[in-house]
Amino acid sequence: MDVRKAVITAAAPDQHTIPLQRLVDRQGSDKTALQLIVEEVTGAGIEEICLVIRPGDEASYEQAAGEHLGLLHFVEQTEPRGYGDALLRAKDFVGDAPFLHLVGDHLYLSETDTCCAKQLIDVAHVHECAVSAVQATRENKLPFFGAVGGTHVARHTDLYEVKTVVEKPTPTQAEQELIVAGLRAGYYLCFFGMHVLTPLVLETLEHLASESDRRVTLSDALSRLAQRQRYLAAELKGTRYNIGAQYGLLIAQLALSLSGHDRDQILAELVELLATRPAMSANGGVAS
Amino acid sequence: MDVRKAVITAAAPDQHTIPLQRLVDRQGSDKTALQLIVEEVTGAGIEEICLVIRPGDEASYEQAAGEHLGLLHFVEQTEPRGYGDALLRAKDFVGDAPFLHLVGDHLYLSETDTCCAKQLIDVAHVHECAVSAVQATRENKLPFFGAVGGTHVARHTDLYEVKTVVEKPTPTQAEQELIVAGLRAGYYLCFFGMHVLTPLVLETLEHLASESDRRVTLSDALSRLAQRQRYLAAELKGTRYNIGAQYGLLIAQLALSLSGHDRDQILAELVELLATRPAMSANGGVAS
Repeated sequence: MDVRKAVITAAAPDQHTIPLQRLVDRQGSDKTALQLIVEEVTGAGIEEICLVIRPGDEASYEQAAGEHLGLLHFVEQTEPRGYGDALLRAKDFVGDAPFLHLVGDHLYLSETDTCCAKQLIDVAHVHECAVSAVQATRENKLPFFGAVGGTHVARHTDLYEVKTVVEKPTPTQAEQELIVAGLRAGYYLCFFGMHVLTPLVLETLEHLASESDRRVTLSDALSRLAQRQRYLAAELKGTRYNIGAQYGLLIAQLALSLSGHDRDQILAELVELLATRPAMSANGGVAS
Repeated sequence: MDVRKAVITAAAPDQHTIPLQRLVDRQGSDKTALQLIVEEVTGAGIEEICLVIRPGDEASYEQAAGEHLGLLHFVEQTEPRGYGDALLRAKDFVGDAPFLHLVGDHLYLSETDTCCAKQLIDVAHVHECAVSAVQATRENKLPFFGAVGGTHVARHTDLYEVKTVVEKPTPTQAEQELIVAGLRAGYYLCFFGMHVLTPLVLETLEHLASESDRRVTLSDALSRLAQRQRYLAAELKGTRYNIGAQYGLLIAQLALSLSGHDRDQILAELVELLATRPAMSANGGVAS
């Protein structure tokens, strides 16, 4: 399986400015989140990228793309019909090839010299099927993610054959359907925001959308896929940072900086801040 | 002196997206930098704000302004002719009233219940003249700021009568012209990015611009002003954060969070990151 195309969704009304946010990368260069996401993707050998955006956002995104602009195709989601619909806007771009899909509000930090997207594509290449990256995630974070249940693939500690997919499961649902042998108690395999998908996933999504009044999600389509075809989940050597969450940008920037060339400078600034910023008193002023 | 108008400059080609960046305020609310700057200004009793922006940025700024949009007047700087020229674009808005001026790439954190802008306006109100906020700043940061020299105002430890203003002085220049009695050795009074200015400052700026081929700065006009009129510099009880500088957003966000309601949560996240993010090895991977 040869993956050369990527689809990045960034059209959610409350999240569409996230990829325009500015960060400093591990080497100390100023980048937009969009540039970091695109670099994750190009680092995995991707040659063409489809960005699904809100109408009116193209100019800001072009500015934010920097040197990678030439790789980008913009597609607008004309009405805010949710994540599944956004992904479907890329159907023509995808054609009949498998593709990498990333959400536009996550950043990744690999623990190896191979970026997370490349690790995932390597799995898809070997196993010739759709693969979702997952991360063992504590129960209290289930409301934020899709989660999968399944069984270990023989002789692979980080690879699972997916049997069930549930979008934002309740703890009860998770306990009944998503327990995976070998994980710590209270942990579940939640989506990492990164998938290698086949055109069949988009067809399934389109079919589900046509027969339902509610908004369908990628999880709905992947759940259907798991019942019909081999579909894997892979734990990658790396961490996802949801920069759309509260303090998400701060935590991602800290993780980048503390893993980067300017670690010592940032540690020094941190110590100075901790020494000079007292806790706030109840009335909003600074405690004496 | 009654100050009811404010001018915020945000038109610099390399800095114009800074006010659009997202942060979390001390109370834990998601805000854009623009919202935080506008709140600093409205907290000081300002009723009308002129934003000097680049052509084409109005839509993004309107989106980023949130609930304060009704207070904003947008003026475009049609050509990138520098900071002095940007400020002059607000001449019609200002009319014949004194005004508060803030740069669009600084955030402020007060050490008292009175915001920094209010502290500054209070000084202007009492002394009836132009006042620049200043902060004692180490010599190594002189290349980033305008700096003033002068003498203490009798019976005010934090107030100076300005005699000299130099934009981005060299250390030699600073030592010869900007030593201020009572400051620690190697420290100078550098601009805080916040001024109460009179229409005369804009007239002076306009006059200097008309007789010079080079770009004139606010410092040029303030230097001329200091020779003719009483002009003060005030050290405020608070800190400026230059969010246009490298890691500026990170440091400002940390300062806000560590002074805010979510301090404990942020400290916990910090400890976890420090425990799990090892230093990077020379080859770009993670040290073992």
